[in-house]
Amino acid sequence: MDIKEMLSHVDHTLLKTTAVWEDIRQICDDAVKYGTASVCIPASYVQRAKEYVGDRMKVCTVIGFPNGYDTTAAKVFMAKDAIAGGADEIDMVINLGWIKDGLYDEQEKEIRAIKEACGDHILKVIVETCCLTEEEKIRMCEVVTAAGADYIKTSTGFSTGGATPADVKLFSEHVGPGVKIKAAGGISSLEDADEFLKLGADRLGTSRIVKLVQGMEADGY
Amino acid sequence: MDIKEMLSHVDHTLLKTTAVWEDIRQICDDAVKYGTASVCIPASYVQRAKEYVGDRMKVCTVIGFPNGYDTTAAKVFMAKDAIAGGADEIDMVINLGWIKDGLYDEQEKEIRAIKEACGDHILKVIVETCCLTEEEKIRMCEVVTAAGADYIKTSTGFSTGGATPADVKLFSEHVGPGVKIKAAGGISSLEDADEFLKLGADRLGTSRIVKLVQGMEADGY
Repeated sequence: MDIKEMLSHVDHTLLKTTAVWEDIRQICDDAVKYGTASVCIPASYVQRAKEYVGDRMKVCTVIGFPNGYDTTAAKVFMAKDAIAGGADEIDMVINLGWIKDGLYDEQEKEIRAIKEACGDHILKVIVETCCLTEEEKIRMCEVVTAAGADYIKTSTGFSTGGATPADVKLFSEHVGPGVKIKAAGGISSLEDADEFLKLGADRLGTSRIVKLVQGMEADGY
Repeated sequence: MDIKEMLSHVDHTLLKTTAVWEDIRQICDDAVKYGTASVCIPASYVQRAKEYVGDRMKVCTVIGFPNGYDTTAAKVFMAKDAIAGGADEIDMVINLGWIKDGLYDEQEKEIRAIKEACGDHILKVIVETCCLTEEEKIRMCEVVTAAGADYIKTSTGFSTGGATPADVKLFSEHVGPGVKIKAAGGISSLEDADEFLKLGADRLGTSRIVKLVQGMEADGY
């Protein structure tokens, strides 16, 4: 896949807790320049970032992030609040304790409520694969599909592991036709990115791909 | 300090993402048995835990946790939602990006809004000391005092470091008379606990003190 096409699948991401506005502005500028799918940034920066990028870039944010154990009411509020602030896309985290307790119905209900709050805006569901068994991953593919979310996403980047080729392949075999796949966490080379896309990922959550391309430009590529 | 007195200063804490109800119930039982100050648990378990413990134990939860970059509106909603669900105490995380940008007024305003939502319920403000400079820590003592919060708290336990004696001492020198101190993150021995309390901490966020006392009982202490 050529690099421009690859960049169009990237959610250019900055979610570190100490990021200041200047860092976010830089991420926005780079996203526009390199034509990424979106910028993915903390909720507290959504309104300012959307005012800054306008229609030049989609703004994505995270809710119930990264631990996932806020109440459903809180997650629904956060989704509405983010969209009112200008967010185009929402990445939510599931309640891992519920999954470990087998409460899949409860989880499906929560995702459905948040998708309803999102309306036409894209909802991605982070299942944090590093905390799940194979069976739980497959069940979550079914739950995300049934709940009507737009994407299943591998990882927050804040737990013990990130995206793996095996998980993206597993997702591609078990989600319904309406659900796309986002790989995130630890994607650090163009070869990684290419592999994830070939295995069926439609989005990549990472800040490193843009930086790699910038480095190649600096080297006169 | 004797052990019973020490336990009365402990927020018996379980905030791992994969905790199931049985884990939470166990934490509640142990908290009641050992007479801790509270149980500190994920928001999604507050209602069930409060129904379970009733007036036998205070229930504490966390909001904007652990990254702190949700919007103020979302944090206020989460505080109200937790209290409506039965939470007695709220531990919130500050917006570290704002602090790095020097937006102390914005941070004070946010804490004040959340304290207003908490009413008579205790509000603790987690400043995540491992991410702050000495000057930022001192400024946060002033901000937490001015905003009317009840406690300043060192750490989430989810970043690069936990409570240190030096930070608790620094807090005790810079907070106003109405503000107490909670040390949290990495407290792993009775000696640690004793030191933090002697340096001026009023609460300790940890699960290990109760476990140590249980171990001593098993050994026939």
